[in-house]
Amino acid sequence: MTAPAIVHTISALRAALAPLRAGGIAMVPTMGALHDGHLSLVRLAEAPAVVVSIFVNPTQFAPHEDFDAYPRDLERDIAALAGTGREILVFAPGAREMYPDGFATTVTVGGPGAGLETDFRPHFFSGVATVVAKLLLAALPDTAIFGEKDYQQLLVIRRLAADLSLPTRIIGAPIAREADGLALSSRNAYLDGRARQVAGNLNKVLKDVIARAHETGDLRDAERYGAETLKAVGFDSVDYVAIRDAETLAVAGTLDRPARVLAAARIGRTRLIDNMAL
Amino acid sequence: MTAPAIVHTISALRAALAPLRAGGIAMVPTMGALHDGHLSLVRLAEAPAVVVSIFVNPTQFAPHEDFDAYPRDLERDIAALAGTGREILVFAPGAREMYPDGFATTVTVGGPGAGLETDFRPHFFSGVATVVAKLLLAALPDTAIFGEKDYQQLLVIRRLAADLSLPTRIIGAPIAREADGLALSSRNAYLDGRARQVAGNLNKVLKDVIARAHETGDLRDAERYGAETLKAVGFDSVDYVAIRDAETLAVAGTLDRPARVLAAARIGRTRLIDNMAL
Repeated sequence: MTAPAIVHTISALRAALAPLRAGGIAMVPTMGALHDGHLSLVRLAEAPAVVVSIFVNPTQFAPHEDFDAYPRDLERDIAALAGTGREILVFAPGAREMYPDGFATTVTVGGPGAGLETDFRPHFFSGVATVVAKLLLAALPDTAIFGEKDYQQLLVIRRLAADLSLPTRIIGAPIAREADGLALSSRNAYLDGRARQVAGNLNKVLKDVIARAHETGDLRDAERYGAETLKAVGFDSVDYVAIRDAETLAVAGTLDRPARVLAAARIGRTRLIDNMAL
Repeated sequence: MTAPAIVHTISALRAALAPLRAGGIAMVPTMGALHDGHLSLVRLAEAPAVVVSIFVNPTQFAPHEDFDAYPRDLERDIAALAGTGREILVFAPGAREMYPDGFATTVTVGGPGAGLETDFRPHFFSGVATVVAKLLLAALPDTAIFGEKDYQQLLVIRRLAADLSLPTRIIGAPIAREADGLALSSRNAYLDGRARQVAGNLNKVLKDVIARAHETGDLRDAERYGAETLKAVGFDSVDYVAIRDAETLAVAGTLDRPARVLAAARIGRTRLIDNMAL
């Protein structure tokens, strides 16, 4: 078990990666507050060298969102990474390193980036696409691993990488879940006893939506059923329950192509998302 | 004198560059219709291997602009490149290779990209920034050379490369000029006898503007003088004559920092640009 090395600048990152490049480099971009979901991404890396970036990216938070409250504990994160037994380089840049004076570039992704999360967080994916492009260009890994938990984000990043010919293969990793099926998320830390109990129903309701969609073939009805059931089990509001094409996120009319059900719902001020293959 | 090799796909480009990478790679992105200005960029390349991309990028033309009329002659371009005596790899992708089905990514650059050309060609720099990002990521050259003729574009690309941590150094190259000082441009091919004569005054008027700015210190007056003089010598309209900070393109108030005068003016349907250091 080796303690991960830490670098804070892009030039130090590139210098540290240079001797590792021939053997292959995998990257796991994160915002820290690492949980078993993140660690499962690290374990999935096939390359001998793994770069884990830890950067709470201000540009993907709206002013009213939880940027200041977002959990940060670099020492705990590093201890968690040490526990994976992998050779890890942590890239933990400051905001000045990522967004120096005069920074003026924005990467936007339409297609899978339209709708769903964008309807509720309009600047989210441009913030994500810009910072992920920069992180991938800073490290130039052979592969980068993103969790399916943020399924729309995964598709946006796949699209970005294909469109700009990034020299990095994007890998999606299965969602890690608690015993009751709740998808692991750094934001679960915000949930107290009762809210935590309600949250555990999100994945169960998605399973019910899938069953109903297969049963009736009426996908819009299954979505409505899902939103109503989420409210009935204690969610305060539902941003969306949507059955979409699994590759393009276009509205799915029938189930003759791979589809995905995606949902976002709120308990108090905590917003949870989840998704499953149909 | 070796005939340049030609590749049409990103995968063939990467395969051809792989054995050359250790020695160093320079890139000169062009839209073809190569003239001595382009060839001077190629000659400036310090790396032993030079990639010249030839792609008339549809996304940087507005519907009313000259995309269809833009001169294209790949064989002539290749002969011109052969004449440089350099080892050149030509990357000539089709539109499908650069913009495959479902393409949805746009790179925008504010800062130096705001105003001037953007006031008259609102989508120009997002088209340029997106395609240049993709070209640079396809080839991953050590250096890329852009002419100062498109001075605002050069600053936009410098900003883009710095902001996204592209692993490529951006080099600006001096403007190549005809005997009468007209900046070389593929669009000069549109100019007939009288128009060509008028065009030759653009660089002379910029020199007068610079002299007047130094003389009076009144930069706005010098700009007005420039616009009026261009019309007096036969230009049909003047988009702008502007004295700007040479690094940020912010409006220059005084001449205590490096400044640049930039101009765009039209003769009939032909739009010419030029610029000079003050």
